[in-house]
Amino acid sequence: MNASPDPFSERLKSNAREIEALLEALLSKDVLSDEIARPESLRAAMHYAVLNGGKRLRPFLIIESALLLGGDRETALRVGAALECVHCYSLVHDDLPAMDDDDLRRGKPTVHIAFDEATAILAGDSLLTYAFDIIAAPETALSDARKTALILALARGSGLGGMAGGQALDLAAERQAPSADGIITLQAMKTGALIRFACEAGAIVAGAADDERKRLRAFGEKIGLAFQLADDLLDITSDAETMGKATGKDAGRGKGTLVALNGIAWAEAELRRHVNDAVELLAPYGEKAGTLIATAHFIAERKS
Amino acid sequence: MNASPDPFSERLKSNAREIEALLEALLSKDVLSDEIARPESLRAAMHYAVLNGGKRLRPFLIIESALLLGGDRETALRVGAALECVHCYSLVHDDLPAMDDDDLRRGKPTVHIAFDEATAILAGDSLLTYAFDIIAAPETALSDARKTALILALARGSGLGGMAGGQALDLAAERQAPSADGIITLQAMKTGALIRFACEAGAIVAGAADDERKRLRAFGEKIGLAFQLADDLLDITSDAETMGKATGKDAGRGKGTLVALNGIAWAEAELRRHVNDAVELLAPYGEKAGTLIATAHFIAERKS
Repeated sequence: MNASPDPFSERLKSNAREIEALLEALLSKDVLSDEIARPESLRAAMHYAVLNGGKRLRPFLIIESALLLGGDRETALRVGAALECVHCYSLVHDDLPAMDDDDLRRGKPTVHIAFDEATAILAGDSLLTYAFDIIAAPETALSDARKTALILALARGSGLGGMAGGQALDLAAERQAPSADGIITLQAMKTGALIRFACEAGAIVAGAADDERKRLRAFGEKIGLAFQLADDLLDITSDAETMGKATGKDAGRGKGTLVALNGIAWAEAELRRHVNDAVELLAPYGEKAGTLIATAHFIAERKS
Repeated sequence: MNASPDPFSERLKSNAREIEALLEALLSKDVLSDEIARPESLRAAMHYAVLNGGKRLRPFLIIESALLLGGDRETALRVGAALECVHCYSLVHDDLPAMDDDDLRRGKPTVHIAFDEATAILAGDSLLTYAFDIIAAPETALSDARKTALILALARGSGLGGMAGGQALDLAAERQAPSADGIITLQAMKTGALIRFACEAGAIVAGAADDERKRLRAFGEKIGLAFQLADDLLDITSDAETMGKATGKDAGRGKGTLVALNGIAWAEAELRRHVNDAVELLAPYGEKAGTLIATAHFIAERKS
């Protein structure tokens, strides 16, 4: 479709290839150190869940945030692989029959369809666990202080007070439509928390000062809000073919989105506002922040 | 039943009370630091899953191993609470309909019965995540190096190459009976890995030298083997009332155990051998190791 791909798309894709090569290595049969055995069925399900053709946006944010602040690229890649394990575990569990009950993801059978439900539950559990393993492992060339900071931030972003809590609120929203404030909290947790973590993690990898860490975290918060609004807009305007999954589904299930509540025009304006806020936050870095700024625009304008 | 409780039982119980008070605090509504919100339904399910009347054997092993090597008791308690979160998450997920499909645990409805299946999946996920949060948190008074070592050992003990992998092997064993070696690997992973971690974690908390850490780890391995044999023997000899859950079930499902394979007399002898090996490993510590040695005997002789 793109006759002349822009440099940003190329950079996103080449980073994705690197993350995938690393994930491939991390989920190979013979990475065995201080483990008892790697049951093949479970390893295969983890591999299937992770090597799924995703855009690898979260690892990209870690890498680019780290590079902006002088962090090491190889280290950021490893932390990115860890974060992708958490993101993919959440997709596997969200797709389960007891949750969103989805048979397809990006046009492929979901893990509980391709394997079975028990294996999908365990693959999710093991991917979540593996994320902390990857960060703590000696191969991740970071001080223990930075590792601890990353692990704490990742746990906060993905647990009860973050992503998993957001999914609980999302399920509750099917029974009772939340208020606009309720939707904002839900989305900040379910999708926002990991995107925010990604940007903050780059700062931690780089050993940035507290104010820079906070700035990147705020940037992540803004683009997380933009990401969700873009997703909700896509859900209404896109068709199933482009998205590779059922669309119009959130509305069909009676889940309120801000788009449903306030209309498309409002949502598009709000989306622009968040992107502008995000770009504004990176003004002190000048041209160095070009890729992160392009990412904010990409998130707002993506078509899938 | 015990007219004059022995000092060991008293010590186990008083430790359990302390662990429970700490878990109660950690799972209260208002522990909110760097989280977005704590959805009440999910918090309540996590609380229900964890405050379940368990013996808290794994935290006890951390505390006593740490004390043996001069570690700080309060810190060991926090690491014990983290480990109990992992243990309890595994029970919640193992009980799910797609896994062992159990409605009762210790005489109470399992989490997916008391709440619902989606909440049980998320409560398990969030407890696993919270374990790493607790260890990494500033309130855990350990150096970052020890935190990183604990997190790595916990992740290895509970993931693909440990507990979760063991559960995958256990599910596979329902379809095809494993060999004796297969059973040993399965059990070393499913139940052994966390017990081994508990003893090793005490050594890490205490900042013990490598050889002491390895010794405690080996002790944990031996009592893990004893624990599983005792469990398999209880499954055959005990009745449902004492165990508070369905018994004779493993055999009924066609799962091979070493007891089923080699007989009760063999298993009892093997159990004694593991306990003797475990006690032998602690010989260098003399009387100081009294409580851990009593734990090894308790594990072998427990009636529930």
